[in-house]
Amino acid sequence: MWAYFPGLRWSPGRGEFCFDWLAEIIDRLYENGIYTVLATPSGARPAWLDEKYPEAMRVNRMGMREHHGGRHNHCMSSPIYREKVAVMDRKLAERFGSHPGVIMYHISNEFSGECFCDHCIRRFRNYLAEKYDHDIEKLNKAWWTTFWSHRYNSFEQIEPPFVHGETSVMGLNLEWKRFTTWNTNDFLKAEADVLHSVTPHIPVTANLMRMFGGLDYRKMAPNMDVVSWDNYPVFHNDWETLAETAYETAFQHALMRSLKRDIPFVMMESAPGLVNWQKVNKVKRPGIHRLACLQAVACGSDSVQYFQWRKGRGSYEQFHGAVVDHLGTDDTRIFQEVAEVGELLRKIAPAAGTLVKTRAAMLFDWDNRWAIEDMKALGQNTKRYEQTCIGIWKEFFRLGVDMDIVGSDENLDRYDLVVAPMLYMLQPGTAANLKAFVERGGQLLATYLLGYVDSEQPCYLGGFPGDGLKDLFGIISEEIDTLYPSDRNGILMADEELRGEALAKASEADDLGDGFRAGENREGGCGDKDAAEAASKWEVAEYAEILRVQDAQVLGTYTEDFYQGSAAVTCKSHGKGKAYYVAARTSAASMAPLFQRMLTDAGIPVRKLPEGVECHARSGEEGRYEFYMNWTEAPVSITGVTGKDLITGAEITDTLDLPKYGTAVIHG
Amino acid sequence: MWAYFPGLRWSPGRGEFCFDWLAEIIDRLYENGIYTVLATPSGARPAWLDEKYPEAMRVNRMGMREHHGGRHNHCMSSPIYREKVAVMDRKLAERFGSHPGVIMYHISNEFSGECFCDHCIRRFRNYLAEKYDHDIEKLNKAWWTTFWSHRYNSFEQIEPPFVHGETSVMGLNLEWKRFTTWNTNDFLKAEADVLHSVTPHIPVTANLMRMFGGLDYRKMAPNMDVVSWDNYPVFHNDWETLAETAYETAFQHALMRSLKRDIPFVMMESAPGLVNWQKVNKVKRPGIHRLACLQAVACGSDSVQYFQWRKGRGSYEQFHGAVVDHLGTDDTRIFQEVAEVGELLRKIAPAAGTLVKTRAAMLFDWDNRWAIEDMKALGQNTKRYEQTCIGIWKEFFRLGVDMDIVGSDENLDRYDLVVAPMLYMLQPGTAANLKAFVERGGQLLATYLLGYVDSEQPCYLGGFPGDGLKDLFGIISEEIDTLYPSDRNGILMADEELRGEALAKASEADDLGDGFRAGENREGGCGDKDAAEAASKWEVAEYAEILRVQDAQVLGTYTEDFYQGSAAVTCKSHGKGKAYYVAARTSAASMAPLFQRMLTDAGIPVRKLPEGVECHARSGEEGRYEFYMNWTEAPVSITGVTGKDLITGAEITDTLDLPKYGTAVIHG
Amino acid sequence: MWAYFPGLRWSPGRGEFCFDWLAEIIDRLYENGIYTVLATPSGARPAWLDEKYPEAMRVNRMGMREHHGGRHNHCMSSPIYREKVAVMDRKLAERFGSHPGVIMYHISNEFSGECFCDHCIRRFRNYLAEKYDHDIEKLNKAWWTTFWSHRYNSFEQIEPPFVHGETSVMGLNLEWKRFTTWNTNDFLKAEADVLHSVTPHIPVTANLMRMFGGLDYRKMAPNMDVVSWDNYPVFHNDWETLAETAYETAFQHALMRSLKRDIPFVMMESAPGLVNWQKVNKVKRPGIHRLACLQAVACGSDSVQYFQWRKGRGSYEQFHGAVVDHLGTDDTRIFQEVAEVGELLRKIAPAAGTLVKTRAAMLFDWDNRWAIEDMKALGQNTKRYEQTCIGIWKEFFRLGVDMDIVGSDENLDRYDLVVAPMLYMLQPGTAANLKAFVERGGQLLATYLLGYVDSEQPCYLGGFPGDGLKDLFGIISEEIDTLYPSDRNGILMADEELRGEALAKASEADDLGDGFRAGENREGGCGDKDAAEAASKWEVAEYAEILRVQDAQVLGTYTEDFYQGSAAVTCKSHGKGKAYYVAARTSAASMAPLFQRMLTDAGIPVRKLPEGVECHARSGEEGRYEFYMNWTEAPVSITGVTGKDLITGAEITDTLDLPKYGTAVIHG
Repeated sequence: MWAYFPGLRWSPGRGEFCFDWLAEIIDRLYENGIYTVLATPSGARPAWLDEKYPEAMRVNRMGMREHHGGRHNHCMSSPIYREKVAVMDRKLAERFGSHPGVIMYHISNEFSGECFCDHCIRRFRNYLAEKYDHDIEKLNKAWWTTFWSHRYNSFEQIEPPFVHGETSVMGLNLEWKRFTTWNTNDFLKAEADVLHSVTPHIPVTANLMRMFGGLDYRKMAPNMDVVSWDNYPVFHNDWETLAETAYETAFQHALMRSLKRDIPFVMMESAPGLVNWQKVNKVKRPGIHRLACLQAVACGSDSVQYFQWRKGRGSYEQFHGAVVDHLGTDDTRIFQEVAEVGELLRKIAPAAGTLVKTRAAMLFDWDNRWAIEDMKALGQNTKRYEQTCIGIWKEFFRLGVDMDIVGSDENLDRYDLVVAPMLYMLQPGTAANLKAFVERGGQLLATYLLGYVDSEQPCYLGGFPGDGLKDLFGIISEEIDTLYPSDRNGILMADEELRGEALAKASEADDLGDGFRAGENREGGCGDKDAAEAASKWEVAEYAEILRVQDAQVLGTYTEDFYQGSAAVTCKSHGKGKAYYVAARTSAASMAPLFQRMLTDAGIPVRKLPEGVECHARSGEEGRYEFYMNWTEAPVSITGVTGKDLITGAEITDTLDLPKYGTAVIHG
Repeated sequence: MWAYFPGLRWSPGRGEFCFDWLAEIIDRLYENGIYTVLATPSGARPAWLDEKYPEAMRVNRMGMREHHGGRHNHCMSSPIYREKVAVMDRKLAERFGSHPGVIMYHISNEFSGECFCDHCIRRFRNYLAEKYDHDIEKLNKAWWTTFWSHRYNSFEQIEPPFVHGETSVMGLNLEWKRFTTWNTNDFLKAEADVLHSVTPHIPVTANLMRMFGGLDYRKMAPNMDVVSWDNYPVFHNDWETLAETAYETAFQHALMRSLKRDIPFVMMESAPGLVNWQKVNKVKRPGIHRLACLQAVACGSDSVQYFQWRKGRGSYEQFHGAVVDHLGTDDTRIFQEVAEVGELLRKIAPAAGTLVKTRAAMLFDWDNRWAIEDMKALGQNTKRYEQTCIGIWKEFFRLGVDMDIVGSDENLDRYDLVVAPMLYMLQPGTAANLKAFVERGGQLLATYLLGYVDSEQPCYLGGFPGDGLKDLFGIISEEIDTLYPSDRNGILMADEELRGEALAKASEADDLGDGFRAGENREGGCGDKDAAEAASKWEVAEYAEILRVQDAQVLGTYTEDFYQGSAAVTCKSHGKGKAYYVAARTSAASMAPLFQRMLTDAGIPVRKLPEGVECHARSGEEGRYEFYMNWTEAPVSITGVTGKDLITGAEITDTLDLPKYGTAVIHG
Repeated sequence: MWAYFPGLRWSPGRGEFCFDWLAEIIDRLYENGIYTVLATPSGARPAWLDEKYPEAMRVNRMGMREHHGGRHNHCMSSPIYREKVAVMDRKLAERFGSHPGVIMYHISNEFSGECFCDHCIRRFRNYLAEKYDHDIEKLNKAWWTTFWSHRYNSFEQIEPPFVHGETSVMGLNLEWKRFTTWNTNDFLKAEADVLHSVTPHIPVTANLMRMFGGLDYRKMAPNMDVVSWDNYPVFHNDWETLAETAYETAFQHALMRSLKRDIPFVMMESAPGLVNWQKVNKVKRPGIHRLACLQAVACGSDSVQYFQWRKGRGSYEQFHGAVVDHLGTDDTRIFQEVAEVGELLRKIAPAAGTLVKTRAAMLFDWDNRWAIEDMKALGQNTKRYEQTCIGIWKEFFRLGVDMDIVGSDENLDRYDLVVAPMLYMLQPGTAANLKAFVERGGQLLATYLLGYVDSEQPCYLGGFPGDGLKDLFGIISEEIDTLYPSDRNGILMADEELRGEALAKASEADDLGDGFRAGENREGGCGDKDAAEAASKWEVAEYAEILRVQDAQVLGTYTEDFYQGSAAVTCKSHGKGKAYYVAARTSAASMAPLFQRMLTDAGIPVRKLPEGVECHARSGEEGRYEFYMNWTEAPVSITGVTGKDLITGAEITDTLDLPKYGTAVIHG
């Protein structure tokens, strides 16, 4: 077991360092077999520091210096703050780095936010000058500033996107986000360097926050020895089933796992009981805690940790779940469930160090996410890039495939199937990457919005998708139609096998949010015959591209509107490799038959478990561990399971029976 | 009759005082038998004053000095503004204090708002230093600042909760609210002192605004000789019946009345006709004005006053209802209705000076309200403390009980029944108060959220409710479950008599807002049998505590979810005294049978009038006056009424007949 | 054909002017028979200019100087910016003014916005001093500042309505809007003067934006030689039929046309394909582009122009529709449709220079709009002045009448029928204008809210409508009732002919938005008989005035509530002239029978075309051109058409057949 100290106290005043209280805790923990992950306190500042160095507080998007308060409002550029943090980190490492109980450093806390102070503006200008070879005309061209007379004559004229300043240049907006990642990363690296310089043997991490929109985590991972994250699902909510919540959490674990694919990650925080800051802070039902903890391990975490051990008596998180409640006894429901999880972890300890391995990957780029959010087109409230990715990922998961989530320019050699939803922006190298993948026999699927802009956001000329991808897919997208919420189109697949029972399934496993829900209501009054016909179509909402087909095979066509009969789903073969294109937004459930065919062609086994039953496999030198979790309230039987259940000790020969909320870890 | 001058004009420039216009008006009024309540002009400043003393304008929560404009934006701390107001008040008192027509002073206008200027910051720091004995560690402990490294080293480091500053320390937020009351009160007192020093014989008041959230009126009442308030109900709205509007207004009157329980209050403002600033400014239907005026007197007001006598030709309230319209004649509907009320008041004049007396009280603390609003837990949109109080108050009112509304640390000697809804924060003395009340035979009811934190907001350790209350009630609350809007639970009362027809009643008399309305829709499709079963349960929404019962009797248990069968309603007897606890949010209508039992045990008579018929009683040396108002469009007959109707002069021997919107004042 | 250059590039730095690139384009266009409308670049500034002259950037309503960025954020008052713009304009005129291809100047771009800088404040004070004869007491009286002690002692004390300043004085708010128009107009005039001084023969225009709320276009039109506007309807939306969208666009064209009634206007911008900045950027269906272009000409435009010729590769409008797409070929659907329109325009060229002439007008004042928006009364979300005007205009259009839209103080000599909806504020001269119109035999209709305030916003005394209009109409409005969304009343017309099938029609052609839609739902459950009865009433929502009838004839009475049976529709005759008054908000469709009677009395022919078929007529020396457009998907036949169809060349003798989305231009 580990203890982790977030929000470490600073010294009470300048020049004083009192670590004795901390030393005593670490000692006592160690004496009781508990290791410590030691956090640096840069994410929380005492009042004296803000009073002495007001320049370390951020300037907000309105140009106003913030006051002391809150938490993560320190400027990442501030020289004085960096200096003070380095002193503190060095002292901590010197005092505790040789303690046998201290096994990892945890840098700062949940990095986030941005700053518009003069230091940051200066660093931003330097960052841009470096990027554009100190040639302002290169920047003007990339940002297309001639439009609306927005040209700059020098880097000194550039300001970040103040709310009452320049917010209409997409190039500026995107570079500001990239800079914010770059600057935060630089801050992280500075802390890591100090710690490593004193105690090179102790690994460092920083706690991430799921699919966070403010920072490109993929750029930050190289500066950590281990990836860790804070996992707070919204269980028992009113917009999805418990299984959907679990599957989405599995996606988040997969995202974290994929940041460092060859070593396990760490679940740094999770809540015993409830959390206190969600919109509705519902109590976790008995058994859910155990499922959630096992899920983290199943997805590749080598640890289960809690925020927090004991509820504080006051301040912001006094009501956040904890192992020990204000009541103070060990006979509470929460304490008992936590103790159970401790037992469980002891039993499955052999799985530690093993890895989740997969032959399928989804491409997801933070750059692309930011570009789509800021693109001036389509529907303002229906971009839904992240939800679309999650929906497709979950559909593959339902087919038994635990996809990695990787950058579009990352090496794809270990994969046989790749999905690239809504890949609007192409990085340098992305097109070549995809081409090489298909040419060596890979199964590739891309969707509408593919390859409109390059990494600086000017559009490709001569037909989308650009950078040569129109030849890889054999199509050109001529127009993209954006539908109103009540609008619908459909896709009829030529091959009956690919039609499936799309709509029926879509009702249960809604992937795309309101758009499709609205659709279901609309169809509510259909007779049975209409419903059957409708069920043979893939329902289209929100986006539909109108294609020119060059040399692709047309697999499906639109069923409505002025582009009725034109191509909606295509495939171009390159030897064994295939490049599929789905030109419209349809539910992931609709596309499942196509996914299944791709998996078959890729030689990846399909395995459908009952809805709500989750399975992950980790493997290592000692063999393979299959983790089963039943997120439903009904007992289930799963066949095709062989091996020893580490939890019960039972040998399973074919059928695994799981009760409501039941779990098993099969070692075979 | 009285005339009242709000927004009194200041002099046209510095150093000039021209009161002649005012003297003429006061004289003419007096000559016609009309007395004057003279307002001080501190709530409205002319441009020259702001130009000369910009420091008297407030600094807002963003740290920006406001410009001249609006109304109540003067800094309460500003020495120069206090000085100028004192000069003005003294001049007014000297000029008019001996006028026989001037019978009361009305200080400023509808106090509200806060200021973040340097003066206020300094005063806030001094206020805190006084409160915490000049010991910053006492403050750190109370505010639990060690969490997130938020410790202060000195009072000089503390700033108010700027929007871009410290908003996450609940101790700071609460003290800022307390300080704002303290500072406003200090301003009020300064004005009162000047007036009293010149003319000690003239009482002062300040016009309050119903259950206003910005100031703790209970702390301000001691600085007024008389309590007064401005009453603007939203009649004929689309979210409740007219009767509900009337009952809620009765609650507001009760709140005001309870601020000074031994003298009548004054309804300082009310609208003839419509108001102009509500979201929908609907015309008051004929007869409503008469009902509303009589209601004020029935609830303890010794006066009915209007804003405004004549509609101004321009500016903000040019369309606010007035006795005299722009049309300028006395044959308008509104003028006629006002004249009728004048007649009515003349007839019921003997009731003046009498008091509403009651043996039941509800505890309501502003501190508790602020703490609940700011607590980081539960559901963000479903706290509803005020609505919950109002709902319970109205349900008792339907049982014929006109409860006082008092502070949790006020003397409870005059009561036999006390209700304490959601009393999350305990004041020093509250627990002892409740204990003494029960021990002398009182009937006490508390609900979920009781006693989580002390008056500085740290949680009690060792089990909620804290400060000894777990022994008074015989229970500990181990967890609190927050439900989504579509979630429901139920409570089955063991004793059939306490089940009632809860649901059916809840449909009509909805107490808790959207939560319960959603529930009704959800049940819409139930068959009759289901409905009957459902009706025997108390429906639970939004909050449900899970209890450990120590030595209380379990009266009702949960019907659903993992805590099904566990205690939801309990009672612990202490001799004749009883301490009831309702652990979940259920409609006040559901709890009515329990309320009725408590009343019976307390020896307080239950009297159910037809829905929409309101009755209050005032009593004094000359006997008892019963006020009856029929807020429905149907005629009603009420039995058990004996005495002379002051309005019609008729002697009522048992049955009082009231037409649509009819009224009666029975002197018996 | 014309080319138009919006957002013209400034020179790359101070003191440099490089026009050669532009000269080359203008030359090449001219050589290919294409004329140029040359835009001045004042609406888009390069970074060097903002860096050098930060005082030219606006100060926003919070008092913060904006940063460089966006587009139209230059201060209209800035002396230095005016100076620089004058230099640029002069250079442009000198260089290109004598080019035979340059036929018009287009000043700046889509004027809008306001500035709170010191220059603007000073100019505002001067503007006010001029307006009020340098007598602050005149201003105090007009603004009614004595209320709430808001008096000013000098013009120097006045500030514009900062968000944290004075926002409660309606006089100030209105004058600030008037000043913003005045100041923008002054800026426009300054640019026009420079251009005219160099090349007096070239006309100037400025591109307007439909019924824009920020500027009083009627005051700006005199400073343009030609009116032009940018037309971007939201086709295929989900809140109305395509026909409704078309009719509303016709209204906007009529508004623009009426700004200069004796010369054609110019449609400066429209989108080939889609736009990129609407909430849902749906593709225009095939054929719609042709309809929309022809509609502009039908309504009085002498030109069809596009934004934009070619999609830029980057920045804000990279996805805005263009003739040439990123694909770069001329075989796209959009290019083909644009080419077709070119053919069409060539065929109907003879109609150029002719005018739309009409004998009916609607009064619409920007002042009145602003006053209604800011009035402190009624329902906060249901003012709907513009929608009400548009609804009534469309209903007349359905009766075959293409009304002008003119100011309430404009000369009405050319009209026989005038409608004045919600004319809350009367300009000096309005009452006399209306009186003269009726007295010479005109048919006049006004509605609720008529004549409450004068042009400075003090209410009229002695009965609404003021300024003598109560005698013109023979009524006084004593009260105005504001209804909740679920409230309804009705009007029963005494004359059966005027009852119509109001409700049924209202369902199809909804004029008033949510209010009436809610009503339809509410009536959903009515039986047939009830429906028939309901259909004979005009349904009333949101507003209902209670009238005193002096000497008018009562045509219709209220059917519900306490004012049931009282007058709701009246008429007072003055010889042949009639003054109708509709006291409540009812759908325009309900009022159609009344409109029809008025048209008949005015001698204006009524002609009802099938729903979705639009007809406009232009006439000139060469005769009359009737433009027919079928906005429906079904073919239609129209009778009574005679003449030659300029598009097909066919002679139509009585019946014109139009296919789906078909068009015809009949010269007879």
